[in-house]
Amino acid sequence: MSTIKEYIENNKDRFINELVELLKIPSISADSAYKNDMTTMANAIKSSLEKAGCDKVEICETEGYPIVYGEKIIDPKLPTVLVYGHYDVQPPDPLDLWDSAPFEPIIKKTEKHPDGAIFARGACDDKGQLYMHVKALEFMTSNNQLSCNVKFMIEGEEEVGSANLATFVQNNREKLANDVILISDTGMIANDVPSITTGLRGLSYVEVELTGPNRDLHSGLYGGAVANPINILTKMIASLHDDNNHITIPGFYDKVEELSARERAQMAKAPFSLDAYKEALDIDAVYGEKDYSTNERNSIRPTLDVNGIWGGYIGEGAKTVIASKAYAKISMRLVPNQDWEEITQLFKSHFENIAPAGTRVKVTPHHGGQGYVTPIDSVGYKAAAKAYEQTFGKEPIPQRSGGSIPIVSLFEENLKSKTILMGFGLDSDAIHSPNEHFGVWNYLKGIETIPYFYQYFTEMSN
Amino acid sequence: MSTIKEYIENNKDRFINELVELLKIPSISADSAYKNDMTTMANAIKSSLEKAGCDKVEICETEGYPIVYGEKIIDPKLPTVLVYGHYDVQPPDPLDLWDSAPFEPIIKKTEKHPDGAIFARGACDDKGQLYMHVKALEFMTSNNQLSCNVKFMIEGEEEVGSANLATFVQNNREKLANDVILISDTGMIANDVPSITTGLRGLSYVEVELTGPNRDLHSGLYGGAVANPINILTKMIASLHDDNNHITIPGFYDKVEELSARERAQMAKAPFSLDAYKEALDIDAVYGEKDYSTNERNSIRPTLDVNGIWGGYIGEGAKTVIASKAYAKISMRLVPNQDWEEITQLFKSHFENIAPAGTRVKVTPHHGGQGYVTPIDSVGYKAAAKAYEQTFGKEPIPQRSGGSIPIVSLFEENLKSKTILMGFGLDSDAIHSPNEHFGVWNYLKGIETIPYFYQYFTEMSN
Repeated sequence: MSTIKEYIENNKDRFINELVELLKIPSISADSAYKNDMTTMANAIKSSLEKAGCDKVEICETEGYPIVYGEKIIDPKLPTVLVYGHYDVQPPDPLDLWDSAPFEPIIKKTEKHPDGAIFARGACDDKGQLYMHVKALEFMTSNNQLSCNVKFMIEGEEEVGSANLATFVQNNREKLANDVILISDTGMIANDVPSITTGLRGLSYVEVELTGPNRDLHSGLYGGAVANPINILTKMIASLHDDNNHITIPGFYDKVEELSARERAQMAKAPFSLDAYKEALDIDAVYGEKDYSTNERNSIRPTLDVNGIWGGYIGEGAKTVIASKAYAKISMRLVPNQDWEEITQLFKSHFENIAPAGTRVKVTPHHGGQGYVTPIDSVGYKAAAKAYEQTFGKEPIPQRSGGSIPIVSLFEENLKSKTILMGFGLDSDAIHSPNEHFGVWNYLKGIETIPYFYQYFTEMSN
Repeated sequence: MSTIKEYIENNKDRFINELVELLKIPSISADSAYKNDMTTMANAIKSSLEKAGCDKVEICETEGYPIVYGEKIIDPKLPTVLVYGHYDVQPPDPLDLWDSAPFEPIIKKTEKHPDGAIFARGACDDKGQLYMHVKALEFMTSNNQLSCNVKFMIEGEEEVGSANLATFVQNNREKLANDVILISDTGMIANDVPSITTGLRGLSYVEVELTGPNRDLHSGLYGGAVANPINILTKMIASLHDDNNHITIPGFYDKVEELSARERAQMAKAPFSLDAYKEALDIDAVYGEKDYSTNERNSIRPTLDVNGIWGGYIGEGAKTVIASKAYAKISMRLVPNQDWEEITQLFKSHFENIAPAGTRVKVTPHHGGQGYVTPIDSVGYKAAAKAYEQTFGKEPIPQRSGGSIPIVSLFEENLKSKTILMGFGLDSDAIHSPNEHFGVWNYLKGIETIPYFYQYFTEMSN
C-alpha cells in the first residue's frame, strides 16, 4: 500500500494524459452547436468515475444537459462527502487571442508554473480541478484508504447558470444527503500562499435589447432626428454608475453587508502587490468604487459589468447606418444578503424606466445566484485547513472570492450542509479568457491534498 | 423619331429588365470578399454606356476599385454635361431583416409605389438612379435628340468614402472638363412633390478602439476592480452629447452656419407630417437637438451617430467576461463651412482626452467629405427646375438633404462647375437599409425628365 506521494510519482504521466484527453472535448454549454460534445463529455466523466472506484454511476437526464452522479458507500454510519464539479466550459472566443487551439491541449512552462501548465479551455475551470477529485478517489479506493463515503455530482450547465440543477437537487435530497460538500472551482492566492475561499459573490445576468426606429436607417437622412438606439444604449448604460463608480440603481445597495473596520483590516493583510497586479494586466491604473481597495472591490462589493455589447454595422469598412436595435449582456456581482432575483427586478424596472421616448427596451434575465459566506470554525473548514497544512507546509488563508458559484447557497438550503471551496488554480490561470491553463504542480498538489481532507474530516467528525 | 414618352412606353420592360440584371451583381465595396463582383459590375457599366451611344468608354484603374469613364462629344463648341454615379452598394446586412434576397431583385407594389417598386440592394442607391441617365442617353442618341456633349464618370468606392476619386479628378481635369455636373444620388419629397437637393451635409467617419486589461478577464475575479472597456466606452460615447443633445466636442460648432429666421421659416414650408414620420418609423417620439425641428435636425444641423458598436461576448447564451477591447464606428454629419478634416482632428483629440486612466484609446479616421450648398439661380438649377416642371407639371422645391456626397465639393474645387442633384428616390425607399427599393414610376420618370434637362441647359447656356 503506497502513500499518496508515491502513488502520484508512479502515475502522474497517466494523470496528465487522462486530463488532456478530457480537455480535447469542446463541451461548450452556451452554444447549442456543441450538443454532441456535451454528451461525449458526460459519458467520459461517467466512465472515469467507474474506473476510479464508484460502485454506482448514472447519467441523470435533465431538461438541459445531464448531471453525472456517482457514489461509493463504504459504511452508512460513516460521514459522507459530496463532491460537486462541472464538465461544461466557457466559449473559447476570441479565438484569435489563443496562442494554441483551445481544444488541443499543450503543456508549456510559464513564470508562475516552472513545472509546466496545461493550456486548454477548461484546464482549470473546471475539468482539471474536477479531475483531481476523481484521481484522489482512485488512489483511496485502490489503496484501501477511503475513510468515509463519497458522492459525486458533476453538472454540465454551470457556465450557463445551472438552470436545471435546483430541480435535480430538490428532487434528490435523499440521494445527495451528505455531511460536507467539496468543490474545487475557485483559486488560491499563490503556490506558496495556500488559501481557502470562504466567501463568494452572487450573480444576476441579464440581456437588454433597445429598439428605436422599426428598421435600419440612413444616418444622413435620419441622423440627428431620431433616437439612435446605440447612442441611447450607451447613455443608459453609462448612467448606471455615478462619478464615484457607485451603482445608481435605486435600492441596489439596501441589503449590502458593510464590513467592520476590523474585518477590512484583516482582509488587507492578504499579500497583494498593486504594482504586480497592474503589470500583469498591462494597465497604468486600477479603476473602481471610491473608498474601497482593489481586493475589496472584487470581493466584498457588488459590481455591474457589461459582458458584451453589439449593434449596427460591425463588419469591415464603414456603413453610414442608424441601427434599429442595440443589445448588451450585463452582469451584476452581488454580495451576501443581496437577493439576486430582487436585484434582477430592480435592474429591470430601473432600466425600463430610463429608456427615453422614441425607444423601447426589453430586459431578459439570463440567470443568477446568491452570494455565500462559509464559517471558518466548521469541521469541514478545519479538516481542509489541516490537509493544506499537511501538503503545503503552512496554514491556508481564508479568502473572499469575487467569483460566483450560485449553487453553493442552493446546496446549503436544500442539503443543509456546508460547502468547502478547495481551489488549486491561480487568478493568473486565465479562466474564461484566451490561453486558460492549469499548473501541473497545482493539479498534482490537489490530488495529493484531497485524500487528507477525507482522513481528517472523518477523524474530526467523530 | 419618337418622343421620350413614346420611347419609354415602347421600351420600359427592357429598361426594367436591364436594371434587374445589374442589381443581381453584389458589388459591395466595403467587403473585399466581393472583389470579383466589383469587376463584373464595372464591366457591365462599361458595356451599357457603349450600347447607349458613348463613342469612347474606358475602365480607369485606381489604387482601389476602377472608375468607368465614357463620353459622347458631338461638338466641342456645345456645352458639356458630366454625369456622376457609383456602381458600388452598401453591405446588405442585417440579412434576416430582408423580405427577399438583396441580390435577387423582385418587383412588388407598395403603398407609396402603386405601380410597383424594384426591391434589391442598390435599386435606388445608386444603380437605379445611375441607370436612368444611361437610358436617357440611349433615347437621345438613338433619336438624334442629344443637344450637347455628355461625359459619364461612374465610380466604385462611393459607399466607402471615394478614397481614390480625388486623385483621379485632379489628374484628369481636362478629360472631365464640363459646364455642369449632374448627379442622381439623392431623393425627392414625394412623387407629387418634386424637389431638387440644394444642400448636402459633410461627413467625418471614424473608428474607435478602447483597450483596458491586456486580455479578457473573468468578471467575477476582476469585476469592479479594473476599467471595463465596454462600460468606459459607453461613458465616453454618452458624454459626446449633453442633455440638450448638443455635441460636446470643444470647437465642434465654431464654424456652423446659423440660418436666419427667414431661411428657417422658408424651410418650414416644405410639406411634412410629424405624425406620418413617426408612424413610418413606428416611434412614439422624435429625438434630437433642442430648439430645432425634425427637418432642421437632419439637414442644417451637424450630428454625431454611432453606426456600429461591439465588444465582449455577443454569442448565444451568457459569458461572464470583461473584454480586453471595445470598438465603435462613429460618424458625424457636418454642415457647410465645417471642415471635415478639422472636425476629425477635434474628435480625435477630445476622445483621446476623455479616456480615463487604466484604458488606452485609438481613433482611426475612416473617411469624410465637406458639406455643400448649390445656388438656385444657376443655369443648371434653372434648367433642372424647368425639366421637372415639364414632366411633373409643377415646380420643384429646393431642399436641403441630410445626406453627404463628399465628392460634390471636390468637383467644384477641381472642375470649377456646379453640381445639380436630380434625385428621384423617396426617403421611404430604405436605402442603406433592408428591403431597399426604387419605384418603377420614379425610375421611368427620371428617364423621362433627364433629356429635358439637356435640352433646356443647352438652350439657356447660349
